[in-house]
Amino acid sequence: MILTVTLNTALDLTYTVPALAPHTAHRVTDVAERPGGKGVNVARVLAALGHEAVVTGFAGGPTGAVLRDLLAPLPVRDALVPSSDATRRTVAVVDTATGDATQFSEPGPVVTPAEWAAFVGTYEELLGGAEAVALCGSLPRGIHVGAYGELVRRARRAGVPALLDTSGEPLRRGIAARPDLVKPNADELAALTGSREPLRAARDARRRGAHAVVASLGPDGLLAVTPDGTWSAAPPAPVAGNPTGAGDSAVAGLLSALVEGVPWPGRLARAAALATATVYAPAAGEFDAARYGELLDLVTVTEEATAA
Amino acid sequence: MILTVTLNTALDLTYTVPALAPHTAHRVTDVAERPGGKGVNVARVLAALGHEAVVTGFAGGPTGAVLRDLLAPLPVRDALVPSSDATRRTVAVVDTATGDATQFSEPGPVVTPAEWAAFVGTYEELLGGAEAVALCGSLPRGIHVGAYGELVRRARRAGVPALLDTSGEPLRRGIAARPDLVKPNADELAALTGSREPLRAARDARRRGAHAVVASLGPDGLLAVTPDGTWSAAPPAPVAGNPTGAGDSAVAGLLSALVEGVPWPGRLARAAALATATVYAPAAGEFDAARYGELLDLVTVTEEATAA
Repeated sequence: MILTVTLNTALDLTYTVPALAPHTAHRVTDVAERPGGKGVNVARVLAALGHEAVVTGFAGGPTGAVLRDLLAPLPVRDALVPSSDATRRTVAVVDTATGDATQFSEPGPVVTPAEWAAFVGTYEELLGGAEAVALCGSLPRGIHVGAYGELVRRARRAGVPALLDTSGEPLRRGIAARPDLVKPNADELAALTGSREPLRAARDARRRGAHAVVASLGPDGLLAVTPDGTWSAAPPAPVAGNPTGAGDSAVAGLLSALVEGVPWPGRLARAAALATATVYAPAAGEFDAARYGELLDLVTVTEEATAA
Repeated sequence: MILTVTLNTALDLTYTVPALAPHTAHRVTDVAERPGGKGVNVARVLAALGHEAVVTGFAGGPTGAVLRDLLAPLPVRDALVPSSDATRRTVAVVDTATGDATQFSEPGPVVTPAEWAAFVGTYEELLGGAEAVALCGSLPRGIHVGAYGELVRRARRAGVPALLDTSGEPLRRGIAARPDLVKPNADELAALTGSREPLRAARDARRRGAHAVVASLGPDGLLAVTPDGTWSAAPPAPVAGNPTGAGDSAVAGLLSALVEGVPWPGRLARAAALATATVYAPAAGEFDAARYGELLDLVTVTEEATAA
């Protein structure tokens, strides 16, 4: 089983409008409601790859109840912990004319110390049956900024490989607890290290504590700096579409290949192919399975001559 | 008791953002949830004026449950009828920099014939105890476009004065059933009659069946064309603020004064003062009570010499 943690889950709403005009009123022509948050997306992709996936984190209030109802028919196990405050909503307003999205994210619940303690208990129990864990996304209010560091340390004590995918101070603190893998994007890596040069920044992130760093560089693919070597993985050509969730699919590719014992070049090919196949799909947590199969053979993985 | 009908109730969300930038991601700094829909706003203002107010229409799904929870502590009686489809949300995104709002309205539930029949039964029962009824807002899907005409006729048979505040084809059909009063704004009146000249258009609306027409002309106040005469009511000066809900407050002013037997000039002064005091308040369904008291003496009501 692979465990994914989403402390700030979300009820994701997508509103379709003919065209966004600021400071006017819009009739929404279509509304889609989906269970959201990075770890939820990761779990859905893991399940599609044939892995048993368990989702934990918090869910509360009427929005949390809807989130759990939407999770119920999916092939992932719901091990979310109740919060008294309501789960946040996100609203993505999509222009039919351009396909462009404008996003609004609510801040999310305030988690109490008792709720955090209940979560940590559930997390410890779940680690007992986990082959790997993904720690994903922002922290809701009320949770200490070193929370991911704590969760990484608990995973290490349980002998479970931990992947951390967050940003800002939670990433900075989490990386110091020496996770097995971090997967920042270019902006997150630059914010962490002060460098916009990916190779230099990824090496810096390793020095800060991460055993391995896989940076997602958008259309340029992935850059991995690991104890075993440095690789880049590039899709065959830039892809037009919706990049939301591409990073989450990359995380699912990396973790699934890790637990299957696939060496780094294969892990990266899988992650890059999944991320690219996600751009072809309409929503985060989904990917175009046929394209994924084709892309697996078309992704180029190159070992960098420079020492890691 | 005054009855207000809101067939397409809404859970109104207000998102505060520093500045709206299309096609980017926004962190919402503040979220407010309110029970919404025009008739709900009217009922809240009626209650603040000391009238017993009953709210009916439809509520369903998780959003409908939240709407009813938010109504419970308010001094209005909830007589909403269940729908199996969920109540719509509206999202108003307010820029803190400019105060401007960008609005998104979900389409709302599809109401089944059985649900409509259940509503009509409840409506008939409530009419038995009503001094007046306000029929407010858009029709959810599944309800026939002549629905307001049907509700006006049932009110007339029960001897209950009916005010209709809607737009488009539902207004056109409803007005033909001869409601006691319609309260279009300038755009709604122009769409109905083809004329942007308010006096001409209001007279045309009377010819189409309305006994009396009170047009709300934004900062210019109100224009009333009635069997007893023609009046205009103007606030002392244009007001800066949030006009959302001003029309609903005018409806509450007109209906409360009607059931109290106040003659037309007093009704219009009350409606114009309430509408203006609502612009000073932060949210629909609320008004600045102190300003309302001052404005009652400052609104100018002028009888027009022209024959109605």
